[in-house]
Amino acid sequence: MTQKLVFTNLVGEAIDKLVDDLGNPPVYILVDVNTAKCVLPVLLEQSVSATRAKVITVKAGEVNKNLDNLQTVWKSLQDAGATRNSVIINVGGGVVTDLGGFAAATFKRGMKVINVPTTLLGAVDASVGGKTGINFNGYKNELGTFTEPEATIISTGFFITLPQQELLSGYAEMLKHALLENRDELNRLLNYSVVYPIFNADTLLPLIESTVQVKSRIVEQDFREAGLRKALNLGHTVGHAFESLALKRKSPIAHGYAVAQGLVVALVLSHLKLGFPSDVLHTFAHYIRENYGAFDIDCDDYPELLKYMHADKKNTQEGLIAFTLLADVGDVKTDCQTTPDEVKSALDIYRDLMGI
Amino acid sequence: MTQKLVFTNLVGEAIDKLVDDLGNPPVYILVDVNTAKCVLPVLLEQSVSATRAKVITVKAGEVNKNLDNLQTVWKSLQDAGATRNSVIINVGGGVVTDLGGFAAATFKRGMKVINVPTTLLGAVDASVGGKTGINFNGYKNELGTFTEPEATIISTGFFITLPQQELLSGYAEMLKHALLENRDELNRLLNYSVVYPIFNADTLLPLIESTVQVKSRIVEQDFREAGLRKALNLGHTVGHAFESLALKRKSPIAHGYAVAQGLVVALVLSHLKLGFPSDVLHTFAHYIRENYGAFDIDCDDYPELLKYMHADKKNTQEGLIAFTLLADVGDVKTDCQTTPDEVKSALDIYRDLMGI
Repeated sequence: MTQKLVFTNLVGEAIDKLVDDLGNPPVYILVDVNTAKCVLPVLLEQSVSATRAKVITVKAGEVNKNLDNLQTVWKSLQDAGATRNSVIINVGGGVVTDLGGFAAATFKRGMKVINVPTTLLGAVDASVGGKTGINFNGYKNELGTFTEPEATIISTGFFITLPQQELLSGYAEMLKHALLENRDELNRLLNYSVVYPIFNADTLLPLIESTVQVKSRIVEQDFREAGLRKALNLGHTVGHAFESLALKRKSPIAHGYAVAQGLVVALVLSHLKLGFPSDVLHTFAHYIRENYGAFDIDCDDYPELLKYMHADKKNTQEGLIAFTLLADVGDVKTDCQTTPDEVKSALDIYRDLMGI
Repeated sequence: MTQKLVFTNLVGEAIDKLVDDLGNPPVYILVDVNTAKCVLPVLLEQSVSATRAKVITVKAGEVNKNLDNLQTVWKSLQDAGATRNSVIINVGGGVVTDLGGFAAATFKRGMKVINVPTTLLGAVDASVGGKTGINFNGYKNELGTFTEPEATIISTGFFITLPQQELLSGYAEMLKHALLENRDELNRLLNYSVVYPIFNADTLLPLIESTVQVKSRIVEQDFREAGLRKALNLGHTVGHAFESLALKRKSPIAHGYAVAQGLVVALVLSHLKLGFPSDVLHTFAHYIRENYGAFDIDCDDYPELLKYMHADKKNTQEGLIAFTLLADVGDVKTDCQTTPDEVKSALDIYRDLMGI
C-alpha cells in the first residue's frame, strides 16, 4: 500500500522513468483548464510519454469536483479505449488528483495513476494518502475510494508562480502536520513565512519533505482510517463544514483557508476538553488571523454548520461529533466525542479570538 | 481480503449474528422491486436487524444496473445519515449485489457490506470475489471496484421458487467452474439437471458449495485479477459481447445464458488454438444447445461483437483480444492473444454447432 514519492524539479524525466517502469502502457494526462495552459506545455517539452499521451481536460475549481466531470473523464477514457493497464497522469491541484484518482480507481475496476501536484496543497496533502473522491449533493468528498497512486512527483518548480492564496492554503496543512509532531516543528513553521516577497522555494523544500513524510508515515500505518490516520483529520471537521457553508453561499473558499480556521476551532475545543495550553492556542490563532484572516460566521450559521459536522464521514456515534483533538502539541487524541453545545461554545470563542 | 461464506437456510439468524459481530451499527437493506416483494417480508419476520433497518428499493434488471440507480442509492444513504460504520445488506441477484457493493465501496470511501444472493447465479458468481460495478454507456461492468463484502449468506431456500431460466443461468457459471477443475466435476454437472420438475434443492447444495469454493480459492490467490483469476473469465469475453449486443437490441439476455454461449465459443477457440479435445467440445455444445438454446447471430453482427470484445477490460495488447482458454478440462491458459480473424472463425463454428 505504499506509493513512490519522487522529489525532483526534472518532472518530465521522472514521468518518463516511471512510465518506462510500468512497461510503457498507453498514457492519459488529466489537466484542468489552468494546468492545460500553464503546466502541460512544459511537460510536453520535457517528457516523451507526455507527447504521445491523450489529454483529457476538465473545468477547474472545487465546484467542478463533481459527478458531471467524473463522467467526462470516464467517458473520455472509454472513448479512447483505455485499458486497466493504461496509466493516467493527474496534473493539477487537489481537484484534479482527487477526481482523476477516483475515475481511475473505478474505471474498469482500476487503472494506474501517477500524480503530479501543481499546488503546494496538492503536494503536501491531496496527492499523498490514497484518498480519491468527488463532492456530491452539497457534501465534500462524499464519494470516493482509498486507492494509492503508483507514484507522486513533487516539484517546487510549480509552486513559485502560485498566487499568494494558494501558497497559504497549502501551508495550512503543513501547520497541521507540525501540530501533530512537536513544538520545535511548529515554531519552525510559525517563524517561517510563505508571504511574498520573502518566500523562497528552496527554503520551502525541506519543510515540504518533512511534512509529507509525517503524513506518509501515518498513512502507511493506517491506510483505511481505522484509527491513527484520524490524527490527520485535525481541523478538518470544522474546516469541511466551513467549506460546505461557503459552497452553499456560492462563494467557495480555498481548502487550506478553511483548514486554517478549523485548526483554530479544534485547538479551542482541545483547550476546553483536554487542557491544551492556552499560550500556544493564542499564538496559533494570532498567526492564522494575521495571515489568513477569519471566516465570517455568526450564531445564525451554527445549526447549518452542525448539520455538516454531523454528516462527517468519520462520525460513528449518533448525536455526537467525533473530533481529533490535542492534549498538547504532538499529543493527539482521536474520536473525542463532542456535544453540539461544546461545539457552539468553541465557535463563540473562535469568533472572539478572530475578532468577528 | 477474505470474506465469510455462510451456508445456511436460517438467513435471518445469520444476519443478526453478523450484524451483532459488527457491533450492531445502523443497517440498510438494498432490495429491488422483486426481492422487496418476495424476500424482504421473510427477512422482516426472521431478523431483528432487518426490522430496524432502513430499506432502499431500486428498479430490477440488468438495464437498471446504471449510474441513475447508483445515484439513488448514494442519495438514500446520504439522506438517511449513513456513516462509514453502517452496514448495507444487499438482498437480490447480481444486479443488486454489484450495484449495492459499488455504492457501498464508494460512499464516504467505503461502508460495510453483507450480501444475501437470492439467485443461483448470484450465489455462485456475483456475491463471491469482491467485484462490484455498474454498466456505463452501453458497456457491461465498465465502472466498479474490487471490494470484498464482510460476509455472504448463501441459502438454497431462495432458489427453489426461481424461474427455470434463472436456475439455468446460475448453472452456467457452475459449468464454467467444472471446466476449470477436472473431467469428473464436469461429468457430474453434465449428468445433473436443474430442469424442473427433476431439480431438487438439497442435491444442488453440495454442487453449489464445491463450485463456490473453487472460485473462492482462485480469488484469494489473486484478488486484483493480475493472473490466475483470469481463469474465471472463461467464456466471459464472448459472453459479455453477446450481452452487450442483446442490450443494444433492447432485448437483454440473462448473464448465465450469455456465459453458456460464450463457453461454447471459448471451447471452439481452445480447440482451434490449443487442441482442446473435440469430443468434450461436442458433448458440451450439445448440452448447452439442448438446455439453453442458441444466441441468434449472423456474420453481420461480427464487427459489433468484435468491438465489444476489444473493449473488454482484461485486454492489454492493442488490436488483439486476450482470451482465457483450455488446453484440456482443468488445464487453463490465460492471456491467449487472439486475432479478430480467429474469433470470426470460432463464431462460424459456434453457429454451426448450435444450428444457426
